[in-house]
Amino acid sequence: MNCGSTESIDVFFNAKSVAIYGASASQNSVGASIVQNFIKPQYTGKVFAVNPKYKQVLGIPCFPTLQDIEDPIDLVIVAVPARITPRVFEDIAAKGVKASIIISGGFSETGPIGTELENEVVDLAKKHGIRIIGPNCIGVVDTLSHIDTFFLPEYRCGRPKPSNVANISLVSQSGAFAAAISDWTSELGLGVSKLISLGNKCDVDDDDLLCYLADDDSTQVICYYTEGYDQDKGRTFFETASRVTPHKPVLVVKSGRGQKAKAAASSHTGSLAGSDKVADAAYRQSGVIRVDNFEHMFDAAKALAMQHAALGDRVLMVTNGGGLGVMTTDALEAAGLAIPSPSNELTQIYKERLPAYCAIGNPIDVVGDADSTRYDIVFEEAIKSGEYDMFVVGMLLQTPSLSMEITNVIANHQRQSGLPFVVVSMGGGFTTKAGEIMELMGVPTYATGEKAAFAAKALAQYGEIKYGDEFNKTIISDKP
Amino acid sequence: MNCGSTESIDVFFNAKSVAIYGASASQNSVGASIVQNFIKPQYTGKVFAVNPKYKQVLGIPCFPTLQDIEDPIDLVIVAVPARITPRVFEDIAAKGVKASIIISGGFSETGPIGTELENEVVDLAKKHGIRIIGPNCIGVVDTLSHIDTFFLPEYRCGRPKPSNVANISLVSQSGAFAAAISDWTSELGLGVSKLISLGNKCDVDDDDLLCYLADDDSTQVICYYTEGYDQDKGRTFFETASRVTPHKPVLVVKSGRGQKAKAAASSHTGSLAGSDKVADAAYRQSGVIRVDNFEHMFDAAKALAMQHAALGDRVLMVTNGGGLGVMTTDALEAAGLAIPSPSNELTQIYKERLPAYCAIGNPIDVVGDADSTRYDIVFEEAIKSGEYDMFVVGMLLQTPSLSMEITNVIANHQRQSGLPFVVVSMGGGFTTKAGEIMELMGVPTYATGEKAAFAAKALAQYGEIKYGDEFNKTIISDKP
Repeated sequence: MNCGSTESIDVFFNAKSVAIYGASASQNSVGASIVQNFIKPQYTGKVFAVNPKYKQVLGIPCFPTLQDIEDPIDLVIVAVPARITPRVFEDIAAKGVKASIIISGGFSETGPIGTELENEVVDLAKKHGIRIIGPNCIGVVDTLSHIDTFFLPEYRCGRPKPSNVANISLVSQSGAFAAAISDWTSELGLGVSKLISLGNKCDVDDDDLLCYLADDDSTQVICYYTEGYDQDKGRTFFETASRVTPHKPVLVVKSGRGQKAKAAASSHTGSLAGSDKVADAAYRQSGVIRVDNFEHMFDAAKALAMQHAALGDRVLMVTNGGGLGVMTTDALEAAGLAIPSPSNELTQIYKERLPAYCAIGNPIDVVGDADSTRYDIVFEEAIKSGEYDMFVVGMLLQTPSLSMEITNVIANHQRQSGLPFVVVSMGGGFTTKAGEIMELMGVPTYATGEKAAFAAKALAQYGEIKYGDEFNKTIISDKP
Repeated sequence: MNCGSTESIDVFFNAKSVAIYGASASQNSVGASIVQNFIKPQYTGKVFAVNPKYKQVLGIPCFPTLQDIEDPIDLVIVAVPARITPRVFEDIAAKGVKASIIISGGFSETGPIGTELENEVVDLAKKHGIRIIGPNCIGVVDTLSHIDTFFLPEYRCGRPKPSNVANISLVSQSGAFAAAISDWTSELGLGVSKLISLGNKCDVDDDDLLCYLADDDSTQVICYYTEGYDQDKGRTFFETASRVTPHKPVLVVKSGRGQKAKAAASSHTGSLAGSDKVADAAYRQSGVIRVDNFEHMFDAAKALAMQHAALGDRVLMVTNGGGLGVMTTDALEAAGLAIPSPSNELTQIYKERLPAYCAIGNPIDVVGDADSTRYDIVFEEAIKSGEYDMFVVGMLLQTPSLSMEITNVIANHQRQSGLPFVVVSMGGGFTTKAGEIMELMGVPTYATGEKAAFAAKALAQYGEIKYGDEFNKTIISDKP
């Protein structure tokens, strides 16, 4: 899709040369932490420090101004006190750099004097065509290019990794959340391409990144954390979203539903939290899927990143544990999905091919002593019948009768049918490992029936957004 | 409290000598797996195998019948085909054993012939005063005595550990869930005392265990998974629960809320699922806290096991991340808890003692550069003021300014005030480790604001159950 030029944004993620304004050698300082990130071998671009106080910082050359650097600079990271930022921007303009991340706080979030400073910087930037992320933010982590301006040490704040299967990118209004999510996803096994902390959004905003990420091949799902929108910027964002969402799923956590939280959000970011109901309606109309919290976001994002959107809402639940079948079906029903029983014809086939003590229905319980062959039969016949749009597969691995062959069976049917599969596998170490293997094969795997049901719901929700009136029609030309 | 004699139940968890009927040497068999559990050095009682086919099984002596064993036997584990179980019970009776776990299936869950067999066994047991857990179950895991009849190998199905701080015990109608939960809790860091899979409940049922666990010092919270009750047994259970719940929290996951799930539950256990609404009302009346799923159960149980019940529903949220404050407050508000702003007087004190850029309200945002001193001030003054019944503490550790001293500050205020504290700490490796340390100090710690809010809600819910009309009164004589 085409949102307009995204070249001016791309440099934030793919700068080949970076200058750190306010680079510092003093331990634990923001300036030192950022230099530390860029001198790791993973970042292959050129790095320069700018600070009149030093000749070098952590072994890299340090210059009094940008203009003292001979090489061209793609991106300037600004970590100097707010009051000298206008002077820094004159230097940026003189050097002809077109992109800057202002990490420093002390701008519009602090009151009138800060707002004046921020306006001064914005005016300078506009005049010289310089794009700005920030101020008052922690900037960007790109797990592919290794641009990393998060000034938090890795022993406290882990960085996520990209996955070979599928990745999400996340845009956060809150820097603390961006950091916490970086740290959280570093251990979650969810592939992440980019994390962006927007801060005061004096220039680059949610909308710019929506356009950019819509066309970014390394981002399969776009995620947002927001506490509110300016009225005008909100409108633009939702217009863009309407064009993006049929092509790529967009998820949002918007806080401030309640009164207390709204007041807190307003004091936290200084932005007007606005009517939550208005935002809710706008999300729905523009095809943005709103979720209640980050756990839901990650659960939904994983499914949407790995699987096709569902062509309809008819789910078949298959399980080797009766209780798990009951619990998951409860959650599927609560999520508003259809759980049709197999037709008489399909039931007959199952009765012929499965042991008599299997419970044929929806859920189908292939029973605790099942090996993967029973699952294979269930998938083969259900797919042939055309009676289902989606499969939720309960895979309890505590009993040794179910070998790891089950992961091949699931992955093969998923690949051949193109239909979405979601796996639920409750347990400990062996189960976790099996889940990781399942996900390397492209099938999202969850620790509880509720999470799996939530993921299935997201695949159906996105199917409705993507296919519109064609959703829940049996024959769809656009079938993946 | 006193439910009646629980001596006949105690032997299931503290048997000093165990005989395994149907012990077998053939790999992966149920009989072999159970013997395997008991020959681990952790179990310090005597173990005997019973099977006419062998002289010994996995190195332990094997006898043709129980009567061939000279030592007295406390508990017999039965893993023989259903049809020969009556004969086994004659041997059990003759030996004078008073407790048996029937692992084998093939009884009432399979139809009329199985029901007849089950009745025959029950009649024999009643006549000779033998208590039975099962049939059609996986039995018992006791993490303290190391009684372990789960016939699933540990590489597939991990076993939980007891905690020095507090433990839960769980009674499950479903064997597969009991196994999955054993495996899950083995990696969850939640202390577990006992897991019991009840199967067909031909004798020992939910009510017997409720009585027993109510008086069990190693169980701080009693948890159930159930798919339904017989009408009579249900009534007895709820009567007992009314007496237990003011002394010890009881949590239940009952599946089969929806129509589809109810049908599946009925086919799974053969028991009538009954009206879910009736069960819901009975839980409320008897002070049993019903939760939607196991994640909620474990989150609530952890808080209830580690903390006192709340004396009222007034929560103060403290955070070093604005976004986390907003999200958590949203969840607290949605949970129906009171989130009163600090009084003018308390606000004034905070303004004097905290930096000007901290946001005083509820949540109180001590801001990203906070060290533990700011939290200390917040707790000290809030406790002194008497304006709050409970604390939810946001502790983002991505920034090095917050040292691990914060865990001491939280634990000390919790201990000195006796008020419940719940911590939310989002992140990866360092955060997880810090959470473990926090919990060793007795303060439950959660990965998201929603989980922390859910835990706070459970502490208030249980406060209402425990204190009745005294809940939400400022002065309570029964103050812990």
